[in-house]
Amino acid sequence: MMKSWLEKRADLSPDKVGLYCNKNVWTFREMEEEATVLAEKIWPYLKNQMPVALLITNQPQSVFLIHALQKIRVPVLMLNNRLTYEEWQYQLKDSQAQLVIYEDRFGIEADSAVSIDELKQSERKKLTAFDSQDVCSIMYTSGTTGNPKGVIQTYENHFASASGSAFNIGLDPEDIWLCAVPLFHISGYSILMRSVVYGIAVRLYEKFDEHEMNNDLVNGKGSIVSVVTTMLQRLLDVKSDRYHSFFRCMILGGGPAPLHMVERCHSEKIPVYQSYGMTETSSQFTTLSPADASRKIGSSGKPLFPGEMKIADQDGGKCAVNEIGEILVKGPSVTRGYLNNESATNEALTDGWLKTGDVGYLDHEGFLYVADRRSDLIISGGENIYPAEVESVLASHPAVREAGVVGKKDEKWGEVPVAFLVMADQVKSESLEQFLRERLAGYKIPKLFMFVEELPRNAAGKLVRRKLKKEIDHESF
Amino acid sequence: MMKSWLEKRADLSPDKVGLYCNKNVWTFREMEEEATVLAEKIWPYLKNQMPVALLITNQPQSVFLIHALQKIRVPVLMLNNRLTYEEWQYQLKDSQAQLVIYEDRFGIEADSAVSIDELKQSERKKLTAFDSQDVCSIMYTSGTTGNPKGVIQTYENHFASASGSAFNIGLDPEDIWLCAVPLFHISGYSILMRSVVYGIAVRLYEKFDEHEMNNDLVNGKGSIVSVVTTMLQRLLDVKSDRYHSFFRCMILGGGPAPLHMVERCHSEKIPVYQSYGMTETSSQFTTLSPADASRKIGSSGKPLFPGEMKIADQDGGKCAVNEIGEILVKGPSVTRGYLNNESATNEALTDGWLKTGDVGYLDHEGFLYVADRRSDLIISGGENIYPAEVESVLASHPAVREAGVVGKKDEKWGEVPVAFLVMADQVKSESLEQFLRERLAGYKIPKLFMFVEELPRNAAGKLVRRKLKKEIDHESF
Repeated sequence: MMKSWLEKRADLSPDKVGLYCNKNVWTFREMEEEATVLAEKIWPYLKNQMPVALLITNQPQSVFLIHALQKIRVPVLMLNNRLTYEEWQYQLKDSQAQLVIYEDRFGIEADSAVSIDELKQSERKKLTAFDSQDVCSIMYTSGTTGNPKGVIQTYENHFASASGSAFNIGLDPEDIWLCAVPLFHISGYSILMRSVVYGIAVRLYEKFDEHEMNNDLVNGKGSIVSVVTTMLQRLLDVKSDRYHSFFRCMILGGGPAPLHMVERCHSEKIPVYQSYGMTETSSQFTTLSPADASRKIGSSGKPLFPGEMKIADQDGGKCAVNEIGEILVKGPSVTRGYLNNESATNEALTDGWLKTGDVGYLDHEGFLYVADRRSDLIISGGENIYPAEVESVLASHPAVREAGVVGKKDEKWGEVPVAFLVMADQVKSESLEQFLRERLAGYKIPKLFMFVEELPRNAAGKLVRRKLKKEIDHESF
Repeated sequence: MMKSWLEKRADLSPDKVGLYCNKNVWTFREMEEEATVLAEKIWPYLKNQMPVALLITNQPQSVFLIHALQKIRVPVLMLNNRLTYEEWQYQLKDSQAQLVIYEDRFGIEADSAVSIDELKQSERKKLTAFDSQDVCSIMYTSGTTGNPKGVIQTYENHFASASGSAFNIGLDPEDIWLCAVPLFHISGYSILMRSVVYGIAVRLYEKFDEHEMNNDLVNGKGSIVSVVTTMLQRLLDVKSDRYHSFFRCMILGGGPAPLHMVERCHSEKIPVYQSYGMTETSSQFTTLSPADASRKIGSSGKPLFPGEMKIADQDGGKCAVNEIGEILVKGPSVTRGYLNNESATNEALTDGWLKTGDVGYLDHEGFLYVADRRSDLIISGGENIYPAEVESVLASHPAVREAGVVGKKDEKWGEVPVAFLVMADQVKSESLEQFLRERLAGYKIPKLFMFVEELPRNAAGKLVRRKLKKEIDHESF
């Protein structure tokens, strides 16, 4: 029985602050005590080594719960709290989760579920030895097929990701990492892992507020910040004072930054590391350093040490410099596969190389340019929306014959989904929306429905979303 | 086929300086070019995946050779260049090395050996694919049994060691690590690994010279330095100016520092991290931070993240706080065993826990105090001397009946070996010395021979070196 990372960290730096949230502060020792109590309360609920699901928001107790499950060494299934009840049920069933622990605000019925309030009132039972289990966390992502798949993240994956990031941006033992991204995403979860691995504090925000974060950056409350493009834009919109000298850099996810944003950051002396990564790579996989940002506009940089990347053509051969193909990644931060889904795992992974489904090229210096994310992935306010998933729900409506979903540029969210529909019967948009609302998270619901005679398809009958996208980009709404 | 660490590093930071030596400078790209040429020249000599031995001194070309062997992904056997011909032969045979590459100053005869000068004149042959091989390096260490054993160090071991060190002392992308310790030791070899993993430069010294290093520290030529106690003492002896603000810290190996040294460093504002580690842990395993140095005199600190340590009693049970027992270590930097030596591996390793053979205790805060190194290990100028090994060579002399070897305190070297001998026939010290000189490295040869009637032994007939040591400490020579 090995110690959990938090326990090990608490041994090393017991009196160092590990967590800030609102006006509260916890040392690593105090965090370890909180996690131990929770672990001893969860323990009696467990029957086996199957995953335990967490349905939580960004709260200190969520941090302690995550560490409590690492103490028990049972994999945690991080449920996206913006999904619908039906989407949660899919993940719980598919992952064969043995227990759901949920914040009281989320009502959930499952064979085995306990609210955090109930949990807190239950008895503690001293932990005994349990088998080592190298799966740390599971997060579902939808592929191009429409069926969400559970990405397996091992301790090694998280450790390699944390190391690679430190070797890239350096590490100051006094660093504080600001976390306003969701803990159930790899973007937030990976910050918690870095905190215990590095021995640095996290400042956790219940939700992102540009004024609050701006104040904290001006007042020296954080040295590193994880943001997506929309968050960075909102931060720039409210910025008037200089950030404190304690601030070191921003890690920007969710696609490369537009030129004007790069220029603004450069003139404001905000070092931004643009990154490319996904649930399958346990967070950022490539980053573009601020030094390279202006000469490599649109690039996502180079793979973190010791990750490797190659671009493959349709036959799996290696593409030449500047030639577009599928992006493949390999390294210790890359997932070993999808939970309970051998066929998807075999399809995605060959000799450790993971097909990302994204398309791009490497320039002559090895810098990555992502041409198309997962072919048709829509990124809205930092959330991934897979068109195939929304299309499959739309097509399940009795009045819908065919559906095609693409992203439309949006000033606030980056992109929003738009649906093209071939109808069997007439139906109102409101009724369609109601139907979707029961089955899909709000951010996935198309903001616009376009009723058409037919959808563009290629010779093999496959939907050509590129053509829909062209249509959208030329329309003005 | 994965890229070597150097190749990966050269992809990431091609124009960054990776190596300084004398007045010369190499970027990571230039180092990669040097390593590629050497790899392509070594490649035709290889027949299989067995180790290749290096017999080198601290030279830039040694650095390139080490990386060349990593490119080919064949394990490197690092030969200690201070050993005798006979000791080298033992290691070459035991490790089944397929080739020795040696600097011309060391004549060596082996079935397959090539001098570096010859190698440089041989043809290049383009590398083709080769099997992955996770053993990175092999270093021999003598145990208490007297027979040297080849410690297996994997890439994972080195990576974990490098990460743990960075999480401990932080990492500045501009760091320069000063290396005046031997590359064939884990102390020097691990600096090369950190350099490519972190992307920082090494400043290599052909040999340690306190004046040269003092100048470099005063003039901002290095930020981190690895030293052993004798080196630190010599540095303090010549120090007059303040070190440059670029200097960050010293990593001190080879036993805890004496109080006066800790106090001197504190008053001179030299942050010293005292460490405890061994070949089997791929470098430092515990460190004592400068902040704790004065309140924990004599301690070697706590294990680096995520390593673990426990103290075991004679039955393998866990010792209480402050109770002395054998030191056991576990974690990703710990060796998976000894080369071609299953019995030694099984004896040393249980469930990933390695018995260090060292004796010590943990205090109530988890700080390690080493009571006795490998029971009777002698550390002389940073080199380990195992009494059992010297005794066994002494006992092989026809005139010697029994031998006992212990360390005696020495102002310059820390300790020097002293031999107690029970003779069968009379023999002169000079003749004994000559006999030893053919079989043992110079630093292992006793500086004094004491002729006695009998050796102290316990009920089981086992030599009680402790009593010899007491005798030595009370003598004045």
